[in-house]
Amino acid sequence: MTIPPAAPDSTPFGTAVVAGVGLIGGSVALGLRQRLLAKKVVGLDSSMDVLREAEALGVVDEVRASAGEWLREADLVVLAAPMRALAPLARDLAPFLNPGALVTDVGSVKAGIAAEMERLGVRNFVAGHPMAGSERGGVTHARAALLENAVWVLTPGDHTPLTALSRARALVEGLGAAPVVMPPDAHDALVATISHLPYLASLALTHMVARDERLSLLAAGGFRDLTRVASGDPRMSRDMVVENRAALREALSRFRRQLDRLEADLDDPEELLLCAQEGKRTRDSLPVVRRSLLPQRHDLVVAVPDKPNQIGAVTQALGAAGVNIKDIEVLAIREDGGAIRLGLESPEDVARAAGILTGAGFEVRGRG
Amino acid sequence: MTIPPAAPDSTPFGTAVVAGVGLIGGSVALGLRQRLLAKKVVGLDSSMDVLREAEALGVVDEVRASAGEWLREADLVVLAAPMRALAPLARDLAPFLNPGALVTDVGSVKAGIAAEMERLGVRNFVAGHPMAGSERGGVTHARAALLENAVWVLTPGDHTPLTALSRARALVEGLGAAPVVMPPDAHDALVATISHLPYLASLALTHMVARDERLSLLAAGGFRDLTRVASGDPRMSRDMVVENRAALREALSRFRRQLDRLEADLDDPEELLLCAQEGKRTRDSLPVVRRSLLPQRHDLVVAVPDKPNQIGAVTQALGAAGVNIKDIEVLAIREDGGAIRLGLESPEDVARAAGILTGAGFEVRGRG
Repeated sequence: MTIPPAAPDSTPFGTAVVAGVGLIGGSVALGLRQRLLAKKVVGLDSSMDVLREAEALGVVDEVRASAGEWLREADLVVLAAPMRALAPLARDLAPFLNPGALVTDVGSVKAGIAAEMERLGVRNFVAGHPMAGSERGGVTHARAALLENAVWVLTPGDHTPLTALSRARALVEGLGAAPVVMPPDAHDALVATISHLPYLASLALTHMVARDERLSLLAAGGFRDLTRVASGDPRMSRDMVVENRAALREALSRFRRQLDRLEADLDDPEELLLCAQEGKRTRDSLPVVRRSLLPQRHDLVVAVPDKPNQIGAVTQALGAAGVNIKDIEVLAIREDGGAIRLGLESPEDVARAAGILTGAGFEVRGRG
Repeated sequence: MTIPPAAPDSTPFGTAVVAGVGLIGGSVALGLRQRLLAKKVVGLDSSMDVLREAEALGVVDEVRASAGEWLREADLVVLAAPMRALAPLARDLAPFLNPGALVTDVGSVKAGIAAEMERLGVRNFVAGHPMAGSERGGVTHARAALLENAVWVLTPGDHTPLTALSRARALVEGLGAAPVVMPPDAHDALVATISHLPYLASLALTHMVARDERLSLLAAGGFRDLTRVASGDPRMSRDMVVENRAALREALSRFRRQLDRLEADLDDPEELLLCAQEGKRTRDSLPVVRRSLLPQRHDLVVAVPDKPNQIGAVTQALGAAGVNIKDIEVLAIREDGGAIRLGLESPEDVARAAGILTGAGFEVRGRG
């Protein structure tokens, strides 16, 4: 186990700007800070309340309420505003962007924003969609772990420079997520099927029990499961499906054909049984969580002060307690100290190690 | 607090027969026994394995592998076989039924079995549907608590004697469930909307990601919620929807109209937002579990030996520990003892009381 000497300037980005500091933007900002991926993280938001909260929670280093010349120093800009605000935000920021800056977004529909960025002449733009979320939104619930092991789709266009794509990939991997690359149209067709159509179907089902007390009283269990997505933020959901309406209409046609076939099979019970069996097989083979796509990682990030033999102190404390370190990586070293990532065997080991190291005076971050 | 002297023969039923000892049948049998609703519970099942297990688990007092003259002693017969086996089972049993016996079933579609029973001339039949279930089926997972506080729909026909209905109601209440009475057709239309249509929609969605590795890999979270019902037993699900196909077709037509309207609203974002908001309101107002329909009950059933002052011993033990008894009911007294139901303030009190009484040598049952 040899620790490579960290370069004095191994931080991938200098100034990172997160525009829109909500659940996802805040989680990106926290990931950038905790994983030492940027020297400085600036939060840009039109809401002063959000900015104050982001600052109070230590989500960002600095806050800004509007675009301006200050943006030129950014070498990473992440657009994390809600869908409907993405294009206007891109137009606000574009005049001030450093041409060398990597620009990405986290919207859930990709063709539109990619086209808008091309119109604006933002060359180093790579559209992205981290497939992560939470029941509760807002910067308050942001956490770096939200993105860890999440699938993060990147959708470069025909004119996206390869260097921009590889930087975006490194960013996603640096945040602990799994990049999956595909064209914008393919992404949009995919989310139409697995996300926007289910939302519409759920909404249609929900409307069928509206204004019928008896129905809604008896509707529980399975029905609640099926209509959970109808319980999300109505405006965000509406914006998503409207933005992706072309792909969604195509998915709706296929859905209707499936329903027609199942209805016809009500008169052919043997065929319907085969359909039901195939449905169960498919459903049961869906991954339990996106995370299961990836080999499980049980990471603990430890902040170390700039003092001699800190890595030795960490590894000895854990070794003495019988915690097996499977992997170790120096994330970055800065003047005020650095951080190391420990790969452990289980969530229990992560919890134990966090306790041991906190007890020994270290600061631990992230999933511990 | 006065305890009414229990009649020497206060048990509502003498011999109860549960035909089909699976999850629901087994739970009914356990409820009948634990709540002292029948003097003897006989399990009838075509599977010797099931009967052996039911006997080993103490779910029934006696087992029978086929219908016969022995059925004449039953004053309660509960048909709890799977949907497709219900009508044949009814035909098997009908010749041996005591005309005075209350007969009921637990199937999830009601018009067909009601008509079959009328054809068979079973006068005291009241069709029923306990809206309870579990991810795991079979007698192994049966428990009386499954039915407690569940909505249990009773669907008397035009010719059902009122006395039969009131006995069925008393049975359902005795098992701790909440009877809801409606005509068979109304029930079937209702479950088509809240259960069978969602199943079909879920199956259609599942088929859309089948044979596409990329889709099924990325389909998680919301999509899994929406397709959970497609993961049920394919044969049971198939049987349900085929049995209820007339009502289901009607529900499908209404579902298609809802989808058409939502699709049209993709071009009318303001209208779609109203739909999304109404959907969220409706979804959020659905009861979390059926149980919430009813005032919460925190019951503990205590078996008491036939000795003096047992009620005093129970209440003093709890009083000394500060457990507040809100309600008390003598369920039944038999030669070998009896049972009392205690209504307590909270699940925590139930757990505490169970511990205290077990420690004092009492046997507690049910939800404690």
